[in-house]
Amino acid sequence: MVNVAEPDCRRAWQDRFAAVRAHSRWLTEPLSPEDHQLQSMPDASPAKWHLAHTTWFFETLVLRPHAPAYEVFDPAYAYLFNSYYEALGPRHPRPQRGLLSRPALDEVWAYRRHVDEAVARLAQDADDDTWAKVVPTLELGLHHEQQHQELILTDILHAFSLNPVGPAYRPLAQWLGRVGAQGDGHGGAASAEFAAAWWPVEGGLADIGHAGPGFAFDNEQPRHTVWLRPFELATRPVSARQHLAFIDEGGYRDPRWWLSDGWSCVQSQGWTAPAYWQAPAQPHGAWHAFGLHGWQPLDLDAPASHLSFYEADAHARWAGARLPTEFEWEAATATTPTPGLRGIGQVWEWTASPYTAYPGFQPTPGAAAEYNGKFMVNQIVLRGGSRFTPPGHARPTYRNFFPPATRWQCAGLRLARDAP
Amino acid sequence: MVNVAEPDCRRAWQDRFAAVRAHSRWLTEPLSPEDHQLQSMPDASPAKWHLAHTTWFFETLVLRPHAPAYEVFDPAYAYLFNSYYEALGPRHPRPQRGLLSRPALDEVWAYRRHVDEAVARLAQDADDDTWAKVVPTLELGLHHEQQHQELILTDILHAFSLNPVGPAYRPLAQWLGRVGAQGDGHGGAASAEFAAAWWPVEGGLADIGHAGPGFAFDNEQPRHTVWLRPFELATRPVSARQHLAFIDEGGYRDPRWWLSDGWSCVQSQGWTAPAYWQAPAQPHGAWHAFGLHGWQPLDLDAPASHLSFYEADAHARWAGARLPTEFEWEAATATTPTPGLRGIGQVWEWTASPYTAYPGFQPTPGAAAEYNGKFMVNQIVLRGGSRFTPPGHARPTYRNFFPPATRWQCAGLRLARDAP
Amino acid sequence: MVNVAEPDCRRAWQDRFAAVRAHSRWLTEPLSPEDHQLQSMPDASPAKWHLAHTTWFFETLVLRPHAPAYEVFDPAYAYLFNSYYEALGPRHPRPQRGLLSRPALDEVWAYRRHVDEAVARLAQDADDDTWAKVVPTLELGLHHEQQHQELILTDILHAFSLNPVGPAYRPLAQWLGRVGAQGDGHGGAASAEFAAAWWPVEGGLADIGHAGPGFAFDNEQPRHTVWLRPFELATRPVSARQHLAFIDEGGYRDPRWWLSDGWSCVQSQGWTAPAYWQAPAQPHGAWHAFGLHGWQPLDLDAPASHLSFYEADAHARWAGARLPTEFEWEAATATTPTPGLRGIGQVWEWTASPYTAYPGFQPTPGAAAEYNGKFMVNQIVLRGGSRFTPPGHARPTYRNFFPPATRWQCAGLRLARDAP
Amino acid sequence: MVNVAEPDCRRAWQDRFAAVRAHSRWLTEPLSPEDHQLQSMPDASPAKWHLAHTTWFFETLVLRPHAPAYEVFDPAYAYLFNSYYEALGPRHPRPQRGLLSRPALDEVWAYRRHVDEAVARLAQDADDDTWAKVVPTLELGLHHEQQHQELILTDILHAFSLNPVGPAYRPLAQWLGRVGAQGDGHGGAASAEFAAAWWPVEGGLADIGHAGPGFAFDNEQPRHTVWLRPFELATRPVSARQHLAFIDEGGYRDPRWWLSDGWSCVQSQGWTAPAYWQAPAQPHGAWHAFGLHGWQPLDLDAPASHLSFYEADAHARWAGARLPTEFEWEAATATTPTPGLRGIGQVWEWTASPYTAYPGFQPTPGAAAEYNGKFMVNQIVLRGGSRFTPPGHARPTYRNFFPPATRWQCAGLRLARDAP
Repeated sequence: MVNVAEPDCRRAWQDRFAAVRAHSRWLTEPLSPEDHQLQSMPDASPAKWHLAHTTWFFETLVLRPHAPAYEVFDPAYAYLFNSYYEALGPRHPRPQRGLLSRPALDEVWAYRRHVDEAVARLAQDADDDTWAKVVPTLELGLHHEQQHQELILTDILHAFSLNPVGPAYRPLAQWLGRVGAQGDGHGGAASAEFAAAWWPVEGGLADIGHAGPGFAFDNEQPRHTVWLRPFELATRPVSARQHLAFIDEGGYRDPRWWLSDGWSCVQSQGWTAPAYWQAPAQPHGAWHAFGLHGWQPLDLDAPASHLSFYEADAHARWAGARLPTEFEWEAATATTPTPGLRGIGQVWEWTASPYTAYPGFQPTPGAAAEYNGKFMVNQIVLRGGSRFTPPGHARPTYRNFFPPATRWQCAGLRLARDAP
Repeated sequence: MVNVAEPDCRRAWQDRFAAVRAHSRWLTEPLSPEDHQLQSMPDASPAKWHLAHTTWFFETLVLRPHAPAYEVFDPAYAYLFNSYYEALGPRHPRPQRGLLSRPALDEVWAYRRHVDEAVARLAQDADDDTWAKVVPTLELGLHHEQQHQELILTDILHAFSLNPVGPAYRPLAQWLGRVGAQGDGHGGAASAEFAAAWWPVEGGLADIGHAGPGFAFDNEQPRHTVWLRPFELATRPVSARQHLAFIDEGGYRDPRWWLSDGWSCVQSQGWTAPAYWQAPAQPHGAWHAFGLHGWQPLDLDAPASHLSFYEADAHARWAGARLPTEFEWEAATATTPTPGLRGIGQVWEWTASPYTAYPGFQPTPGAAAEYNGKFMVNQIVLRGGSRFTPPGHARPTYRNFFPPATRWQCAGLRLARDAP
Repeated sequence: MVNVAEPDCRRAWQDRFAAVRAHSRWLTEPLSPEDHQLQSMPDASPAKWHLAHTTWFFETLVLRPHAPAYEVFDPAYAYLFNSYYEALGPRHPRPQRGLLSRPALDEVWAYRRHVDEAVARLAQDADDDTWAKVVPTLELGLHHEQQHQELILTDILHAFSLNPVGPAYRPLAQWLGRVGAQGDGHGGAASAEFAAAWWPVEGGLADIGHAGPGFAFDNEQPRHTVWLRPFELATRPVSARQHLAFIDEGGYRDPRWWLSDGWSCVQSQGWTAPAYWQAPAQPHGAWHAFGLHGWQPLDLDAPASHLSFYEADAHARWAGARLPTEFEWEAATATTPTPGLRGIGQVWEWTASPYTAYPGFQPTPGAAAEYNGKFMVNQIVLRGGSRFTPPGHARPTYRNFFPPATRWQCAGLRLARDAP
Repeated sequence: MVNVAEPDCRRAWQDRFAAVRAHSRWLTEPLSPEDHQLQSMPDASPAKWHLAHTTWFFETLVLRPHAPAYEVFDPAYAYLFNSYYEALGPRHPRPQRGLLSRPALDEVWAYRRHVDEAVARLAQDADDDTWAKVVPTLELGLHHEQQHQELILTDILHAFSLNPVGPAYRPLAQWLGRVGAQGDGHGGAASAEFAAAWWPVEGGLADIGHAGPGFAFDNEQPRHTVWLRPFELATRPVSARQHLAFIDEGGYRDPRWWLSDGWSCVQSQGWTAPAYWQAPAQPHGAWHAFGLHGWQPLDLDAPASHLSFYEADAHARWAGARLPTEFEWEAATATTPTPGLRGIGQVWEWTASPYTAYPGFQPTPGAAAEYNGKFMVNQIVLRGGSRFTPPGHARPTYRNFFPPATRWQCAGLRLARDAP
């Protein structure tokens, strides 16, 4: 195991801290102070709040316990920027985050600098014992900030989608210049090519979950054994073209394909296509989709995205297939390389698995115990990552999770079926 | 396999049909016409509706396809008494079932007689081929009616609980005279006796699901393999006394024990004890509970019941244990006898398992395809049966399921823990 | 003034009491025990509850204060059957009245007999002083029961309208045999005849409100002066035919005619016609309406009914007219006879007047202070009575009131306009 | 009548236009771009939206019809900044105004300059006929902007009140330097002085409504006659001290004082004091109130403010008095000077009058017809103006109106009673 107290290692941590923090700046550069303020639904948060909350995490879990001389930037922030940690005291109501015009964006950036400098001083001054205690929480904080980096994008996209002028978050070229294309760039495919593309996976006992080295969240552990029957995975995520076929064949009007709760959503919320998709105004016109680069013609060969679990599940049933379980997904992809599977990392892939604890699960000790475990009900696991995910953040054992009606995340599906 | 077309076998089916149908009459005898009308929440249904809906099931799935001379009792009933079968046409809105004062209770009983007689004629007259086709659906219909028999009780209990005069459904003696004590009669236990009572179960590969002979629902199939780690089950369900200890130690006020969604329920709905439990009006007074026999002092040694999954899960965490998965539960109990486990069949036992499809799951063909599969999301599996369950209805592979906030069912919990 | 303590007068009161109470029986005769239980929305009450509540009124306000030997029928009824009298203690939640299957209908009738007999004894035995105190409340109780007699009908009609089998409350012939045609029988009129039919009324000072003799509610008093400008009233209520013209000309799709709150109702609740009206299934087919005698072809010459205030107001604006104020209505109709005005008493007529206190208003002393005054906000005055109103109940100064979105009452409109 | 086409008159209009527009700038100067974005409830709007909407009014109703060369600033604004004018096309949903981070604040100010310059050019270039047509709408637009100036303050106050850091809109000194003390500065009074202070007004016929000269809204017209009984008005609005007495005597816990709908609000929303009032944290501590200058000790001698109509009405009933009708209020105050009445213009004074049309009411012709008339239901009239009202905006015939549960306006009450 790495000796995290060694000088080189400290420098590496400092660099990594600086890099993650700088990425948050790059991500929010296109946003005006007013944009930073937007909260378009209770499940989303303002970009400014994300910037402050991720900073509060370091202040509260790294600096306050481990940096004795640290001066809290503003005592009120403990209330304003705690998200859901009951053990850390009361907090501002989630649906009212968008009302915090004060502190201003400038003050939040001053807060970030204040904390960044204190972390840098801690990395420099801490004795080895202290530093060894700091590192696990520091690392958790960086992964935590990366999760919020993705939410900054999904949340601003939702807010912009409700603005009739349809603002573009960032031009495509600018985005690609920094982030590049996500995944392996082979996600979409013409449907003609698709039919035969099943990737067989053998059954039997499989080891699931993180075994190190490197970081993983508590919910990816402990590594454990499951029994799998032989199955097949589609070599690519379902494309927009394939999902248009589902739409064209009346998929959103036929209860046969839907779970009962999903059909209720279709009817009560009037779903006729994924979120942000707009049907042609004229017959034979083009579908459009709203994304980070504004309204664009729908890319038919790219993975279908902004589907709820209900839509993913219905599509799979209509296609005569099913969603893979998260164990099937992990077993098929954990071995690097997986030459038969393309498009991983382009859209989060809904699995068939409700989000539950692995056998022997133990939450992270301390305040971070609330990080993952208390959400293990009413959610579905997604795997793989998306183009909204910061580069390097996801891994084969990574378990993302959202309620089944969620559509504002960049999520699609990959088909599975039992071995013939 | 039994030849269901043989005369003796037909008579056995007729007897069984008559017995199940007669039990519905016995169950509803204490209810006035007004009681039959009550619908106290959208999830519950009036007793009269249950009586008609179970009859509609036989009319629609047995008589109409297989008894050519059958005359439909009233064409309007197809709309009034369909529950959720999309393939069988539109239906009366569920929350408005309580508004169907017409047809009157007498008419519903006439409907039941009409269908009972038609089924009897069919059993007598059908040729062997027809009868062989009839039996699977007839059997499904009987198990379906038994499920509704349990709901008749849980639903009327909920309705009566909201009546300030607190009506008793039936005197205890009358109930015991017919149904007897449920389970093995050894559910409760003094807490002193409890601590040491763990029943160890070995790990490894286990076969889960129904393998025949006899009836099972589609959701109990196919039988398949899972890998289990060694674990222990409590020999008895958690008693009311144990749950009072959870209450007394502030369990309903401490977010540490609760899933996030559960804590939201506690706060928004003001939960301070299980449903139907009433705290003492005076210090050192007795707790009471509302049940089928009216308001009674809480039986401290009986299994705690009318808990939601959230409460069961929180209790287990507080007790330093956890809920068993449904696979652990089945593996531990499937072998008859299980001398180490008591109290099975007294309260439905919440498991840790979300309700999902078994690997290779195929819904029952035909209209009954909607019976189970379309509910496989947002629900938690319960196992074992309760004193509200008709005798003989449950079995070790039986999977009951309800949303995690459900409290009007007779549900409690049994603790589990990893092997030391 | 009448000496209410004289023997003849006592007998008259007894007869009147018996007659009003008997009318409640006649009204509920067609209803089964299940029908008596129905509560189809929070604003409506079960017929059984109306029967008990009106009886509770006599028990609480007449017998308990004035009949020393009176034995309360059941102490629980004070909680179950209080409607909204804060001064008389807590009460069963209004939306849960439909859950009171117990006490059974038979018990409620026993309650009524118990109270009827006690009132009869009181009339016989009370000394003159006591009797003089009893009479005002007794009379109030009779008018109160008549108001609930109307609600029994409007509430059961609403409940039956939600039953797909569309039960008829009572055959028309049976109804007419007892109640007769309501009003003067001249409500409807061909539209051709209508145009010229304005009834002019002079302006100036007018006296408004009840001046005696005879009973009136506190809200009709004190009699006071208003200044009116000259105006004209339509000689007949707006007919169904006229309102169909409003519908046909797109009235329910054009915001110009509607108050802002009314337009919100149109859109959020999808109003396209009055409540209980059903458009033709085929082009050129007939409109139907659901009423006390079941589904019937819409009577085009009868007054349009089951309109909200918003619809009445929009119709008037579309017709180039307006609604009369309640003062205009009373000034025009208070003088008997009013040969120019027809159709009074067929439908309650929405006025332009919000329901407020008359200058110098004083609530009835005692518990009945809550009878009218505390509702004097957010409601609109209706005048005249309807075919659902018990014969003899309404009078020219009578002020009925409901919130402006109310549609389950038998309400329509009469046009008014400024004098040319 | 003034000849609005004369050069001097044109200059006067230009000056007045410039002055009103400049006041909007002064009012919003303390607000950051993020503050401008806040919408804390559907009834409130962001300051930025107010700035744009008032500009859209001039663009749409003045420039587009009357300035042929005018170039629309941005066609999208017609959709974004229309408030509720159905005749002017569809509009952005009111509850989503806070999501319009684009256009940015700078762009809205560019819009204002664009329109201001175009209005200036129109004033210079228009021929006399055109100008004569322009002036009524221009004047309406200025009064419209003044109404929104008041809303800018009430809306930001509501938003700031939900921010735990309690931002002050503006220091008191800065406010007084520009606006000065409102009203006559004699609103509050020690309660000892209060008791005897009733101002008697004679009854009889009174003329109500605007008779010119000068501007008035359509809803203040036509002037008409009412009959009043003699009455008395309190010489001062109810003070905070008086309302604390109501609180201390249990006023918020006693249903006797409350209208039924008001009592429902008290219970469902947990009212225990006016909006923005905070009870002492310690016994014998001081009450505080949140206002434009942040959290301040409650000024006991100032008029109680931020009361709903329900609280005003309950207070009056508790005090043995009542609210005046709007006619009483106007009759008592219309004669200048009214030496007996103090404090007018410090808080809007709830009257007893629902907001309805005056006899003979005709809406302003054209698109502005929707300005007032369509809101004439479910609202209560307030009179007098408040310290939030722009100087010179209100007048004795001015009718403000809000729903009875409204608390975010600066509203209080003045007691009235019948003449002894």
